[in-house]
This record gives sequence, C-alpha cells and structure tokens, in this order.
Amino acid sequence: MENQKQLFRYESLASELETKIKNGTYRAGEKLPSIREFHHHLSLSISTIYKAYIELEAMGLIEARPKSGYYVSPPQTIMRKPAFIKRSSMPKKVDLSSVAQSIHNAISNPDILPLGGSVISPELFPHKHFSRIIKGITANEMKTLMGYAPTGGTYQLRRQIAIRTVGIFGEIDADDVVITNGCMEALTLSLQAVVKSGDTIAIESPTFFTILRLLEELGVYVVEVPTDPRYGVDPEELEKVIAKNEIKACVFMPNFQNPLGALMPDSSKKRIVEMLNQKEIPIIEDDIYAELYFGKKRPSTLKKYDAKGLVLSCSSFSKTLAPGLRIGWILADERFRQRIQKLKSVVSISTSNLDQFVLARFLESGGYDRHLRTLRKALHHQVISMACSIQKHFPYNTRLAIPEGGTFLWVGLPGGIDGLTVFEKAMENNIAVLPGVACSASEHYKSYLRINCGYPFLERMEEGIATLGRIIRNSIC
Amino acid sequence: MENQKQLFRYESLASELETKIKNGTYRAGEKLPSIREFHHHLSLSISTIYKAYIELEAMGLIEARPKSGYYVSPPQTIMRKPAFIKRSSMPKKVDLSSVAQSIHNAISNPDILPLGGSVISPELFPHKHFSRIIKGITANEMKTLMGYAPTGGTYQLRRQIAIRTVGIFGEIDADDVVITNGCMEALTLSLQAVVKSGDTIAIESPTFFTILRLLEELGVYVVEVPTDPRYGVDPEELEKVIAKNEIKACVFMPNFQNPLGALMPDSSKKRIVEMLNQKEIPIIEDDIYAELYFGKKRPSTLKKYDAKGLVLSCSSFSKTLAPGLRIGWILADERFRQRIQKLKSVVSISTSNLDQFVLARFLESGGYDRHLRTLRKALHHQVISMACSIQKHFPYNTRLAIPEGGTFLWVGLPGGIDGLTVFEKAMENNIAVLPGVACSASEHYKSYLRINCGYPFLERMEEGIATLGRIIRNSIC
Repeated sequence: MENQKQLFRYESLASELETKIKNGTYRAGEKLPSIREFHHHLSLSISTIYKAYIELEAMGLIEARPKSGYYVSPPQTIMRKPAFIKRSSMPKKVDLSSVAQSIHNAISNPDILPLGGSVISPELFPHKHFSRIIKGITANEMKTLMGYAPTGGTYQLRRQIAIRTVGIFGEIDADDVVITNGCMEALTLSLQAVVKSGDTIAIESPTFFTILRLLEELGVYVVEVPTDPRYGVDPEELEKVIAKNEIKACVFMPNFQNPLGALMPDSSKKRIVEMLNQKEIPIIEDDIYAELYFGKKRPSTLKKYDAKGLVLSCSSFSKTLAPGLRIGWILADERFRQRIQKLKSVVSISTSNLDQFVLARFLESGGYDRHLRTLRKALHHQVISMACSIQKHFPYNTRLAIPEGGTFLWVGLPGGIDGLTVFEKAMENNIAVLPGVACSASEHYKSYLRINCGYPFLERMEEGIATLGRIIRNSIC
Repeated sequence: MENQKQLFRYESLASELETKIKNGTYRAGEKLPSIREFHHHLSLSISTIYKAYIELEAMGLIEARPKSGYYVSPPQTIMRKPAFIKRSSMPKKVDLSSVAQSIHNAISNPDILPLGGSVISPELFPHKHFSRIIKGITANEMKTLMGYAPTGGTYQLRRQIAIRTVGIFGEIDADDVVITNGCMEALTLSLQAVVKSGDTIAIESPTFFTILRLLEELGVYVVEVPTDPRYGVDPEELEKVIAKNEIKACVFMPNFQNPLGALMPDSSKKRIVEMLNQKEIPIIEDDIYAELYFGKKRPSTLKKYDAKGLVLSCSSFSKTLAPGLRIGWILADERFRQRIQKLKSVVSISTSNLDQFVLARFLESGGYDRHLRTLRKALHHQVISMACSIQKHFPYNTRLAIPEGGTFLWVGLPGGIDGLTVFEKAMENNIAVLPGVACSASEHYKSYLRINCGYPFLERMEEGIATLGRIIRNSIC
C-alpha cells in the first residue's frame, strides 16, 4: 500500500509539471526547482521528486545538466515540422552521382566536425568493460577462437540475441539468428536472398546513402515510397505503390529511420506487414536504431506482425556498443534461412569468432541494459541540445522535428535553399553535414540537411551550428 | 673460411645421401643412421650432420619422427600421377547440383574424420602467442578498437602485409592493400569489381567448391581451362580458350592449387600474365596456400609479372594463423582499388578492428616466420604420411602425386570407380572425403577424390585411410 501511494505521488507530481511545461509556465531552457527546494516546499520525499524528474526526462520534457540541475527541454513545436512529400516515383535503377560519392567521402574525414556521418562517439561505449572481457580470455579459449566459427554464428551469441527479442519480434529462438559482418552484410545477404538484378523493390523516401549504393550494385530497380518524417512509411502510399508495380521486396526502417528519425506507429507496422504478407512480398527490416529510443519502451518491429516468415529483420551492435567489432545479424524464419546461410558461407565463410565471443560474453554479463540506459540518456540530451542550438542559430522558418529516438535531425532549410551549397560552404569551414540529395534517387530533398547528433554536444558543436546558421542566412540574401 | 668449409661439408653429405635415397640404397620408410652414429663413423660434427638432415628434410626426401629419428620419405613416383585432362569447356553458367551442396554440408560436420574439408587443425596455430597479445591490449587501445577501422583496413596491418610481399609480388606498398573479411570476401569483391552478371570468365579445371558457388551466385558464365595436376594452368590451353571466347576475367590459384596441389612454374606465370596483360584481361589470383611450401622458398606470384595493374592478388591468414579471425586482403593497383574500396564500404563497411589489431601485433612481434617454418614442416610430414598410407591401403593403380606445398592430395581412383559412391560409403563410416564432382561444373573428375592433410596424422587417420582402401577395393569387385 505504502508503495502504491508513493507511486501515485511521483506520478501526480510528474503530471502536474508536464502540464505546466506544456502550457508555458515553465519555458524551454529554464531551470526547474532543485529536488531539495521541492522537498522543502512540498514536503515530498527526495525519492518521489527524483522519480518524477526521471519520468519527465524519459518523456523528453526536461533534461539533466551535470552539476547544474534539471532544465526544461525545448518544446517540440517551435519550428515547423519537416514536410511530408507525398510523391512516389516510377521504378528506376539507382544511379548515384559522383557528387553523392564525394559527399560520402568528405563526411568520413575525421578532421572535421562530425555532423554529417552516422557515427556515434566511441566515448559513449563501455570500453573498460570490454577491456576486462578481453583480458579474461584464457589461452584455451583463444585456441578455439582462432578456428572458424560456424557459418551462421556461435550458439552463445545467437542465444543472447534471441533472448533480447522477447515480446518485440514474435517467436524467435537461437536457430532463427544468422550472425553477419555488421548490419550492411545482413542487408546485403537478405537482399541477395530475395531479389535478383532487374527486380523492382520498394524503399523509403528519403533513405540512407549506403543502402542506395547497395541497390545500385545489385542492379535492381527501386520505387521510392513517400515516408512521413514523423510516422514513417505511409501504408496508403505503399498500397498504391504495390498496386502499380510488381514489387519483389521492400526495405524499411520502421524505428528511428535514417535520415528522418521517423517512428512507425504499431498500427502502421501491423497494416504494412499484413498487406505485404498477403501479396507474398518479403520485407527487409533494418532495425539498427531501435534500441536508441528516448521514450519508455523499445518500439516493436515489423517482424512481430509477420505471419508468413516473410520479414528478414536486420540489425547490429554498431549503434549501441562497438561498430569496430563487426557483428550484425538477421532474424530469419526457415523460409529464407538456408539460402542466407549458403550465401554467407560463400561471400565470407563466417564471422569473426573473437568478436562474437567478446560480444556474447558482454551480453551474458548483464551490463548491456544498464549501458543502454546511459547511452539513450546521453543521445537524447545530444539531440535536444542540437535542436536547441539549431533553433537559436538557424532562420525561424527552418523545419525541424525532434525524433523519439536515434541520432539524426532532419532539417528543412527555408526558402528552398540548396542543401548542396550549404554542404559545400560548410566543408570550407571544416563542418560536415549531409545534404538531402544524398538520401534519395529523386530530387525531392534538395532543401534538406541531415544532422548527426552522435557526439557529445560540446562548445565546438554550438560554434559549428552557429556557423551553419550564418551560411544559411547568407544563402537567403 | 672455416664457415665456408663447414657449408661444403654438410652440402656434400646431403648430396651423397640424396643420391643414395634416389637410387634406392635407402628405401622409403627406412630409418637413417642417427646423427650420433654418423658422428662416430664419419668424424663429421654433429651440426654438419644435423644441417644435412635439415636440408634433406626441406627437400622432402626425409622426415623427422619425434623421439625416433629421421626416416626416408616415400618416393614421389611409386604411384602414377593424376591425369592431365586436356579438355576445355564451352562457356556455361555454373549450376551446382544439390548433391554438391549436400557434400559440402556433410564434410563440414565436425564429428567425422576431416579428410574432406580444407581446414587446418587449430593445434597447429600459435594460440599461446595470440593469447598473450590479447591480454596485452590496454583499455585505451580497446576504446579505439571498438570504433570502425578504416574501410580499406588499418595502416598497421596493411603495412605488415606489404612488408611480406617484397620480392614476390613486384612493387607493393601499404596503400595497395585492401583488408577484407577473409579470402572469400577478397575474391568476391575482386570479381564484383571486374565482371558483371552474364560475363564469361576463365577458371581452372578442377577448382574448389566455394569459388564455383560464388560464380553461380554472380550469374557469370565460366570456361574451364585444362589444368595440369602438377604444373597448373597450361598456357597453351589458356591461349586457345581466350582466342575462342570473350573472357572478361580469369580466376587462378598458381601456388598449391585447390584441389590439385599444382604449382605453376615461373615461366608459366610469366607467360600467362603477359598474354592476359596484352588482351587487357584482369586476373584474380588466389594465393592463399603459397606460404605452405615444402621446398626452399616461397613461390612467386602472377602479380609479380603484372605490368598493367590487372592482377588482383587475394589471400588471407586462414591457412597459416587463424581462420577464426576473419582477415584477408587484396593487393590491388590504383586501377581497381577505388572500386574495390567502394564495394567494401557498401557490403560490410570495414573489417573487424580487433582482429586486425591482433594480427598486426603478431606480425610486428616477428614470430610469424618461425611459426611458418614449424607449420610447413608439420604439414609436409602430414602430406607425406597420408600419401604413404594411401600407397599402403589403396589399390596399386591409384593415381597420386605428392604436391610441393599445401594440404591436399588429389587421388585418381582406379578403374573409373565413382568418387561419389566412395564418398557416400565413407560417410557411412564417418569419414569425409571430397569427391571430384564437387570440384568442377564439368564431369571430368568423377573418378577423383581430394584428401585434406590439414590434421596431424594420428592412428585414426591411418584407420580411416585403411577403411577407404577397403571401400575402393570393394567397389572394383
């Protein structure tokens, strides 16, 4: 009873504060009363107030600043949302310009401000824990690790990955997991398993550069499905696309889509999978950002609604733990699993035994969830800080929405300013951003930028955004 | 002077013993006088006799048996050599039977006698040294290793690989090296860089299963070039093939070819590269077995004779150090390097940073050459022992040649016995061998087996070969 009463108190406080933030009593950027102040004023226990603050933080309404206290986050509605461009395309082969490739090369340069790529700062990963694991490997274990791992991955790692799918992916056990060299090999093998050169596939519009490059290599035709910047692929638009075209597969990122940050509601996920299941169209789901949610729970997946074994769900640890350990996976039903394993055995035989061992041992140690909580908080803070900074420095009619997870901000430039010009001028100032043209085979995103929030928001970030703001303002004149 | 005289003495002794072995004074399997006996009889120093024995061992004429002494190796001419089948094929797409795939699955079963696969026993790899390296990784190094490695590989590892190419590959520096997930990814990327679906390529006949599978996936047409069981691809046969077909690339394994064990003479290497250079045809060289020579020096490569940057030389550490650490590489001139790096950045982004670090540090430590000497000696001993055992247990008109390196024996069965039947009966006895049908898209090798000598020749090997011998004899009746 006591426990229930306490719960009620923190929830009640959180709810009251939520209202006051939303109606403007507390405004963006303002400091909230300290826990101690509230404790004295309201005679609530320290822990009750602390829990209420944690709750509000999880909702993205307030943020903790180290050694300073809690501040109101910028409201998510100051700027206009990015536009939802409802134009689908005719099937065409991907033919990326040399501009796109040079953009990609440029943003990978480590000497410039990393707002262009999709890397998360290594500072945010638990290297000390991994270092302890490495040092604990015995000579006998090392002997085993120097030999080939099974083609589909070690049982230890497959089991750990299967354990984490409970409630999110439907019924998955260790046998449904195929370990790959990161998420890109997972996507490559999945695509090769279901389509061949000349087939037509449906992708999100906009999408990310590397998948476009992969589709270009595979020689497939693509149709870009209009994708809402907040809610992802629109089921109605998809329905039109599959009615008009003979689609052989879809590649979708339902959770915190790259570059939009869009989160597909469960209703859309369900509807899309049912629609594609009915037409026997395979879906390749890229779920790599899903663990980076800012809300209360991990979003569900397309795979969860898959009744026919037609969803191949791909992911990796590259956004949450260790991109340098090249470990990704595919969750695949029997229907395609054998074909995928055969492909894997041909193109790379198996995945690093050492990397698999180190990751399995980390997961077994139970430190992953704790690490993820810290990581999500840091990324949420970085995203909010970046958005604040953009609101401060970019013209007022910039378009921007704060995503519910992931590391990207999708920024619409005012007055049709050319993102490529901004990119070029930014590069002259040693700042990398990704222009929208690199995110689509169509021309719809010329006036957009993708900004990566994977690094801690330090002073040089603020300076970089201020410089970008000046470049954009000067482009208007 | 003293030193020169000593050299002369051991060389003279070695030469005398060589003659006596070759003319049958000492016969296969016989024990040679111990070093101590010779020391007393001939008043030669222990070290002189020892050096002579090492020399003879390197020539493959004698072998050391632990705690027993030196024995004469089986002469290489007791059995007839495998036949050189001089029939080239019309271009056709690879269409491997389900039989071939099930063979491949069966021989990968770890519970059966491993004479079928191409794995080298982990016992033969320096796991203690690797264990020390792993334990020496600092937390700070681990932090770096958790981040992405550069797409083409770390400079440290590329440099170590470049160092080892001196005198063998022509001018190669660290920039010419692209690190991959093992040799199969190296071959995959190299092929994707130079051919597309529908192109025709020339391959060796016979060749190995996984490259056939890869070519099947790539949808290319293949022409099989007659390949001599001892001297590899025949330049004259190749000339006919390229005159008759529009060949877009060749895939050759000049050193200790899988499955033949053939070693292409330098003259053939030179002639083949000059011929293909002239026609602007790229060569993908698979050099994975080259370090496993039994003779005095590492054989040279096709890349060495390449004047036009048309040879892509692929290899890995999977046969010499640690297959489980998935590290391979391509030596590629500027001509194709950018294309290969782009492909790599798409299909797997980069290679495991941890695996690269561990291997670079091992190579820097200087222990590799010492390890290779031990490994070569062990493999040579295993190959000789296996050949001896085959001579003892198989019918006298079996075909067999002892290769100058690598781990395979290519065995021609007498009387046109079907290798697939032998394979099936062997599997019933928990023995894996590779039937020749899995080594070609043609039907020429039905009566051949490939036998892997990658594991120490223990009693169960002898028993396995005896069982195989019985199966073969029973098949004749």
